[in-house]
Amino acid sequence: MTPAAAAPEPGPPSPGEVFVAEIRDQPEALRRLLAQKSELMAACRVLVERRPTMVRLVGHGSSDAAASYGVYAFGLLPAWTAIRDSISLTVYYDAQVDLSTSVVVALSQSGATPDVVEYVERARARGAATVAVTNDPDSDLAQAADVTLPLAAGPERAVAASKTYVNQLAALALLAGGAAGREREIAEAIRRVAELMEEMLDPLKRAVPAIATTFAYVARMYVIGRGIEFATAREIALKLTETCRVAAEPLTATDLAHGPVAALDPLFPVWTIASRDEALPAVVDAAARVREAGATVVASGNAASEVVDAAYELPVPEPPIPLLAPLLSVVPGQLFSAALARVKGLDADNPARLSKVTRAR
Amino acid sequence: MTPAAAAPEPGPPSPGEVFVAEIRDQPEALRRLLAQKSELMAACRVLVERRPTMVRLVGHGSSDAAASYGVYAFGLLPAWTAIRDSISLTVYYDAQVDLSTSVVVALSQSGATPDVVEYVERARARGAATVAVTNDPDSDLAQAADVTLPLAAGPERAVAASKTYVNQLAALALLAGGAAGREREIAEAIRRVAELMEEMLDPLKRAVPAIATTFAYVARMYVIGRGIEFATAREIALKLTETCRVAAEPLTATDLAHGPVAALDPLFPVWTIASRDEALPAVVDAAARVREAGATVVASGNAASEVVDAAYELPVPEPPIPLLAPLLSVVPGQLFSAALARVKGLDADNPARLSKVTRAR
Repeated sequence: MTPAAAAPEPGPPSPGEVFVAEIRDQPEALRRLLAQKSELMAACRVLVERRPTMVRLVGHGSSDAAASYGVYAFGLLPAWTAIRDSISLTVYYDAQVDLSTSVVVALSQSGATPDVVEYVERARARGAATVAVTNDPDSDLAQAADVTLPLAAGPERAVAASKTYVNQLAALALLAGGAAGREREIAEAIRRVAELMEEMLDPLKRAVPAIATTFAYVARMYVIGRGIEFATAREIALKLTETCRVAAEPLTATDLAHGPVAALDPLFPVWTIASRDEALPAVVDAAARVREAGATVVASGNAASEVVDAAYELPVPEPPIPLLAPLLSVVPGQLFSAALARVKGLDADNPARLSKVTRAR
Repeated sequence: MTPAAAAPEPGPPSPGEVFVAEIRDQPEALRRLLAQKSELMAACRVLVERRPTMVRLVGHGSSDAAASYGVYAFGLLPAWTAIRDSISLTVYYDAQVDLSTSVVVALSQSGATPDVVEYVERARARGAATVAVTNDPDSDLAQAADVTLPLAAGPERAVAASKTYVNQLAALALLAGGAAGREREIAEAIRRVAELMEEMLDPLKRAVPAIATTFAYVARMYVIGRGIEFATAREIALKLTETCRVAAEPLTATDLAHGPVAALDPLFPVWTIASRDEALPAVVDAAARVREAGATVVASGNAASEVVDAAYELPVPEPPIPLLAPLLSVVPGQLFSAALARVKGLDADNPARLSKVTRAR
């Protein structure tokens, strides 16, 4: 036996293996973000000095889902208005909105998304303070902004984002915490979240394949969240769509009642994210409406057990601060997507027609 | 023969008849809105006197789709920042965001949507100027706001909104025009839009049944718009979902490229709204990406002919001002939904599990 045979060359990863490895790396990725102390302080200084009339969040795909979280992080910590701004208005229509009293927080894993970079260039030229939150501190986006908070998630090779998304949530919580003078408390809470995530990964990974098998032929789903968990609904829906080719639409609990509930039937399952906070009653109500329509309910989140009559529960632990729940709530959706892709014979690492850096307008 | 037999009692409307009648009433409904001159002036005065740092738009369902249009109407006419505000932040989380330099524009057909009313009550108490845009000037919402712009659409009895939605778009264009000192120009252009709509209704109504027949077994669709037409994408998707039980998800052209394009296949049709404006190239690119995936494309809008390789075209005329295109672009989607519901044996007037006034949280 030669030494080479004793330690065989590692082959290419099996389909979906990279995505799962990156999901498992998330607790460590959070710790790497927390280690960027001076970069975080510099970014928070920009926010505090500007004392903006509003924070303008921009990003596409998973970064836009993270922006939905930013609306609540800034609304609840410093009580600032944060918006998912229209990129089109500034980049395509050249609307002359006053940006001089705004802070822009631009989110992009690659830092290469063309219209996000162009938005930042224009906004900065027109007086906005600009913060880039990106996994590539040498990217065009980082060059374009006044200051960069590196995500420090480590290389992300699966096309579907995982650890860069969770680190975007954490980065937004840290920035909002900094704006409220609570950065140390938020950082400590995120450190605890990383531990909780580590503990939950194995049990969740064991729980998802059986559920995924029963979903092998599902063509469409709704994913319901509200408030801070609407970001999670958007991100889980995106994972199911891109890695499993399920038409999964994210809805707030209220959106569901204003039309889509009419489309439900027993073959149209609904994933609900139930976390213990002020929006929970709306989500519990929505799940009851789903059950009346005969649709199957999957309940996840730290209050999954509050959802009556769910066919499947994927609970997660409660974080030390309710605002941080979405960092944990997304994980069942990530692992379930990986398992469902495998059941369907799809490669979650390389979905059809997608690439890691999206250059589309 | 008795006189009664000569003029038979009118029976109950056949399924979907009310919805179609209300779509056909839209040109007249627009004229009724334009006649509310003093109410419009009073609402515009509130906007101009406040000179807000931002306009906060709130609404659910079709009203929220209209709010997406408001972002562009205010951005492009007075160059004001308008946002679809989070109702949850203020109503459920009680976030203490500064509202004192804002104008709230609250949209609700019935004026009875509980959390929209509560949002307005709280915002007004905290110093926001508040404008209600509702079809019921005696509603709770109208009572709660500083000033009311009545939609004057006339009674809307079909559960799926049509003329109240188009009048919401027109109301937002008029308010934004008033803020920019251009109310007369916008009113004249809307008058012309009503004429154009009248002319297009019959040809469109004749065109949709043949396409609807081929869509009888479609379970899922994407509806693509960008910029000012994202509102249209949201509203058409909602009509298809609530009246036809199709899982239709609205996406911007860029959203599509950031994930959902991976889910497409030849059985997953995509409706594109192509209007002649700055966002058109992005929509044309998106349609090309859809075709590469082998999916069927329906092209509507006043630049439908720019979409290469569309299986079906439902063009509409160009309005005198590009910003008003969405008032016309939504009509093919309304009429198509009515036709598809009929093909599927569904009652577009009374979809399952929905009622005209949604009281859900």
